[in-house]
Parts: sequence; C-alpha cells; structure tokens
Amino acid sequence: MTPRTTTSVDEETPRIGGIERLAHTDLAAEPLFLAARLASTGSAGANGVLAELGLKVRHYSVLALACSGEEPTQRELSQFLVLDPSQIVSIIDELEHRGAVERRTDPRDRRSKILAPTAAGRSLYGQARDLVTRSTEESLTGLSVAERDELFRLLRKAAL
Amino acid sequence: MTPRTTTSVDEETPRIGGIERLAHTDLAAEPLFLAARLASTGSAGANGVLAELGLKVRHYSVLALACSGEEPTQRELSQFLVLDPSQIVSIIDELEHRGAVERRTDPRDRRSKILAPTAAGRSLYGQARDLVTRSTEESLTGLSVAERDELFRLLRKAAL
Repeated sequence: MTPRTTTSVDEETPRIGGIERLAHTDLAAEPLFLAARLASTGSAGANGVLAELGLKVRHYSVLALACSGEEPTQRELSQFLVLDPSQIVSIIDELEHRGAVERRTDPRDRRSKILAPTAAGRSLYGQARDLVTRSTEESLTGLSVAERDELFRLLRKAAL
Repeated sequence: MTPRTTTSVDEETPRIGGIERLAHTDLAAEPLFLAARLASTGSAGANGVLAELGLKVRHYSVLALACSGEEPTQRELSQFLVLDPSQIVSIIDELEHRGAVERRTDPRDRRSKILAPTAAGRSLYGQARDLVTRSTEESLTGLSVAERDELFRLLRKAAL
C-alpha cells in the first residue's frame, strides 16, 4: 500500500486517515493549529499543481502581488506575505531570472524598489492562478458553498 | 518611528498598517492565502511568547501531541503536523536533549517508536500552553466570541 499524501481526499478516507485519534487532542482544538494545518495541506496541494510551471506557492504569491497593479515594494511584500526580507529577495531573484518580473525604482521613493510583471510574467500568473484555484477547490471540498463564504469572511477579518 | 511587527495590534492601526491597498488584491481574496497569513502571524506571536521557555511553535506542537496520551509515532506526527519526517526527528531530538520527551518502542509495532513526555515535559507543556492560549487570544482579537466559535468549527471541518 502506498503512503497517502495529506492532500489526497476521497469519499472513503478522511485526509487524516489512520490518525483520527490525534484529531481529539488538545492541539487539534487550537484554531491557529487548524489554520496552519489547512495552509500546509493547501500549500502542498498547490505546490503539486504549480510544479508543472516550475513554481512554488511562494513564487506564486509574489507574482500575484507583482501583477496586482499595486506596485508593491520589497518591504511591503515581506510584511504582507509574512516572509523575511531575505526570502523575498531570493524569490524575486528567481522570478526575475526567468523573466517574469522586473525591479524598478519606486517613483514615490527613489531609494526603494517596486516589483512589476513582464508580459511573460502576466501570462505565467494567469496559468498559475487557474491551477491554484482548482487546487483550492479540492482543499475545501468538505465545506458547502455557504461554509466556504463564511470561512473566507472570518479569515479575512482575522488575517488582515 | 520603529517598524511595526505583523503581530502587534491596536485599536488605531490594523496589523497590515501601511499596506491596506494590498488587501484589495486578488491574492488577498484567496482563502488559503488568508489561512496561511493567519497561521504565520499567529506563529510569529506564539514564537515570541514561547521564546521565554526556549521553545518554538514546532516544538510546542510535538510536545502537545506527546502529552496527549495518544502515544503518537514519528510517522503520525509527521502526517498530522504536515512536516517532513526529517524535521520531526530533529524537533524530537531537541526536546529529548532537554529532557522533555522520550522515544519508546511502540508496543503495537516493535519496529516503530512512540513519543512520551517526561514529568518535566508535562510541566513545560502546561506553561507553554498558557502562553500560547494568551497569544492566540491576541491573534483573534478582531473576532467576536461567536465568530471565533464559527471560525473554529469551519477550520476543523476544512483542516482535519
């Protein structure tokens, strides 16, 4: 029997197959643990589908913000994505190396750099977004549409 | 003006102070991004308070499951916490080194090891849990009690 990945879900087997007893521990009653577990299994699923584009979720997130029209600075990316500045620099380097983004001088502050997408980066983001949308659907398959809407509303309120 | 950390929250300033415009991007409309951001800011807050015990959130999670009475194996810890087996081994090594947990042979499968807490480990977990509970309260301060309950219910359904 092959090991089941944490992101595979089917009717018969819950995704914590074999470890249901850990679902009754005090840790599993902590909301931030549950948010982290949802994020981790979701990221694993998204990383799986993004592999065909040679991307990981962290590249995807930076690329998405580069394509937002908001011209984020590296400092803003770091703060919004809750990643160290050094991690942001390395992700941008990788995206720049493959021609998906460009660093430009911030017209609001010439000491600062903003991130802008190239045409190829916009196209890459479009493809990646479709893959991530489908992967997210799978991650949330256990919730009704109304429950997804409510989870989204509450997560926005708590996370932003 | 000192930089504001992502986990500091007060009445006047939302925790994404200065980057509200990124809250209107497509990325900020993705539920798994929001779950990841909540988990990351929550972890940063919990790591901050756990530092006084020399722990990080990942040690805390493993210690919590060790103290659950469920005698988790390393494989189960890896699956439940969505961490690589090598990461689990390293976290257990650190907890074992400080005398908080012990590896024991699994009576259900002699090739496998289960994790059990020491008396010191139980005491450490009690202290850590109090700190994490207070830190979680702060992370969720923007939600009403009813909203927290609903977020918890939906996260459990989606994450487990």
